[in-house]
Amino acid sequence: MKIGDVHYRTIWQHPRHPNIVQVIDQQKLPFRFEIVDLHSASDAVQAIQTMTVRGAGLIGATAGYGMMLSALAAPRESLHAFLAHVRRDGAALIATRPTAVNLAWAVARQISAMEACTKVDQSIEATRDMAQQIADDDADYCRRIGEHGLALIEAIAQRKPGEPVNILTHCNAGWLAFVDYGSATAPIYAAHDRGIPVHVWVDETRPRNQGARLTAWELGQHGVPHHIIADNVGGHLMQHGMVDLCIVGSDRTTYTGDVANKIGTYLKALAAQDNSVPFYVALPSSTFDWSMRDGVHEIPIEQRDTAEVNMIEGIDHAGNVTEVTLVPAHSPSANYGFDVTPARLVTGLITERGICAAHEENILALFPERRAYPWNTKSLIPPP
Amino acid sequence: MKIGDVHYRTIWQHPRHPNIVQVIDQQKLPFRFEIVDLHSASDAVQAIQTMTVRGAGLIGATAGYGMMLSALAAPRESLHAFLAHVRRDGAALIATRPTAVNLAWAVARQISAMEACTKVDQSIEATRDMAQQIADDDADYCRRIGEHGLALIEAIAQRKPGEPVNILTHCNAGWLAFVDYGSATAPIYAAHDRGIPVHVWVDETRPRNQGARLTAWELGQHGVPHHIIADNVGGHLMQHGMVDLCIVGSDRTTYTGDVANKIGTYLKALAAQDNSVPFYVALPSSTFDWSMRDGVHEIPIEQRDTAEVNMIEGIDHAGNVTEVTLVPAHSPSANYGFDVTPARLVTGLITERGICAAHEENILALFPERRAYPWNTKSLIPPP
Repeated sequence: MKIGDVHYRTIWQHPRHPNIVQVIDQQKLPFRFEIVDLHSASDAVQAIQTMTVRGAGLIGATAGYGMMLSALAAPRESLHAFLAHVRRDGAALIATRPTAVNLAWAVARQISAMEACTKVDQSIEATRDMAQQIADDDADYCRRIGEHGLALIEAIAQRKPGEPVNILTHCNAGWLAFVDYGSATAPIYAAHDRGIPVHVWVDETRPRNQGARLTAWELGQHGVPHHIIADNVGGHLMQHGMVDLCIVGSDRTTYTGDVANKIGTYLKALAAQDNSVPFYVALPSSTFDWSMRDGVHEIPIEQRDTAEVNMIEGIDHAGNVTEVTLVPAHSPSANYGFDVTPARLVTGLITERGICAAHEENILALFPERRAYPWNTKSLIPPP
Repeated sequence: MKIGDVHYRTIWQHPRHPNIVQVIDQQKLPFRFEIVDLHSASDAVQAIQTMTVRGAGLIGATAGYGMMLSALAAPRESLHAFLAHVRRDGAALIATRPTAVNLAWAVARQISAMEACTKVDQSIEATRDMAQQIADDDADYCRRIGEHGLALIEAIAQRKPGEPVNILTHCNAGWLAFVDYGSATAPIYAAHDRGIPVHVWVDETRPRNQGARLTAWELGQHGVPHHIIADNVGGHLMQHGMVDLCIVGSDRTTYTGDVANKIGTYLKALAAQDNSVPFYVALPSSTFDWSMRDGVHEIPIEQRDTAEVNMIEGIDHAGNVTEVTLVPAHSPSANYGFDVTPARLVTGLITERGICAAHEENILALFPERRAYPWNTKSLIPPP
């Protein structure tokens, strides 16, 4: 996507230093635009933990590049020692965010690529190619999600000619959350670029405000009309016919169609159902968990630092980025990062292969190879 | 309720100056505790508009005292001129907050009291008594709501001995929102005071954070265990059996049981229904609108300044109260203050006369006098 006139991805290899990976520092947006260098797997771990990079696809791509950086620093005297090193770093990358599944997907692809080689040098070459491939696949998947989702928006636009299609989204499943295009935003950008009038209700998405900080900024950079709203507002808008379509992203979706996404997604899905508003989840296949049946009871929900609830960052009257405390001195808080929307509340899934119902049979019909080869994310984490 | 060792109401006549009304400045809490003097009806209007005072019962009581201050400043040469003056101020008080109905209830009581007199001096005397009566009634209604709601909490406590009863509340329907006790919090305080272990999930309640700023502070002052959560979290907690009961307040409830309350209440009611968590609304009878059938389509929803979404106040690292901007420079926002929860999602209403189902017949069975004498809030506002 473009920032001003320059095309950016969210992650890339340094153009002159192939052993350095660069990312946009998403902790700083929208107040400052800064680029950060990653030199090692532990830099990648830290970038994911501090949310310098965040979002399902982007943390997957960062794990992919992180494995490359791990391989570059690994001992070369034996393939065994080399693989033990990269496996250890892979486990650390997977452990950074317990709910997200793209991490495990990217690490598994990298380990498979390296294990397929017989020499360390070949493995290093393979991991470099695979890091690029993971990033390219992510961008390509999102571009295709945009094409498939566009049809939904076009159909609504035809029913209300001359009026904008009102789309509600939660959190940031935009290009900043992936390598390019985004998942939930890809159909929106595709529609906007073809001249279909769209307007986006952007949930601010407390506590980290990824909607207000990132989605609004993205949409603004691309010229897409939008309004930021408190997370409490969506139900009221849906009751009054002010939302035509909800599209959200996902951090992990079971092959039965249960969707883990940013905390609060479930509440919007309930409101959509109560008001007959279609509720779609846009996700690349890398976000499916092919081993998990019951999302509500099986997907681990990350609990994060309560400072995210207690404090918030913004621009003060002097123009400086300042953090302020929002709560009384002795009141504790709790910070659950995600919730799970049961499949029964999801109208459909928008994937790179097309749109399907959030049901096991429909999902596996789109991805038939997973009937024979499901993979279990748990198997990727070595026993302690 | 007590702050430290001192008993406070939220509004009272100045102990030495009977023509001055005093209120706690709720814009400043929890960071500073300040008391503000109201000298005139327009001071009362401004206090309501700026949310120095807020909450269903308290703005009603403020309107009651505001009418007294209006009467004290009204022309005394004729009862006609006197009544015209107080009626004008009454209309201004009612117009401050379009969704709230306690304003109209209090102004109507004051106008009736003054119209029942034949002389200006008697009217002034009557309005002074009535201002006190409105405040006393509000406190008494809330105390009774506490007694009735206590039974609900006791019944849950008996089913899980030794474990706390987990109650979720939204916004502030605490004693700060009324003259004393609160509506949603009254049963909680009553249970806590009798030694029943309770724990409260406090929705922070964006955009104005009345939950994080006021409810958490109140509960902390009274020693009630609680955690502040983002508004997005409640659905997840309910899915996992971590909420036994929801209790919220109301700004206007139709006699058919539709509940206008702080924006986001509807989303919690949907989650409660989806997870079979009882969802109660605590309200004094002064919050019923006896003229309105269809809350979703008839109750006017206040739209407030978008600065409430774009900016937030907190304590900076130096300990100063500072306001920061949360959103990108060119992203617009929207700010709807309330939503309406349809009666079908409400398990019951906790009123000063007892608990009833959120149905016309059950509500009118508790308030049979309203069958014969409904009153229409619209009739109180003179034509322009």
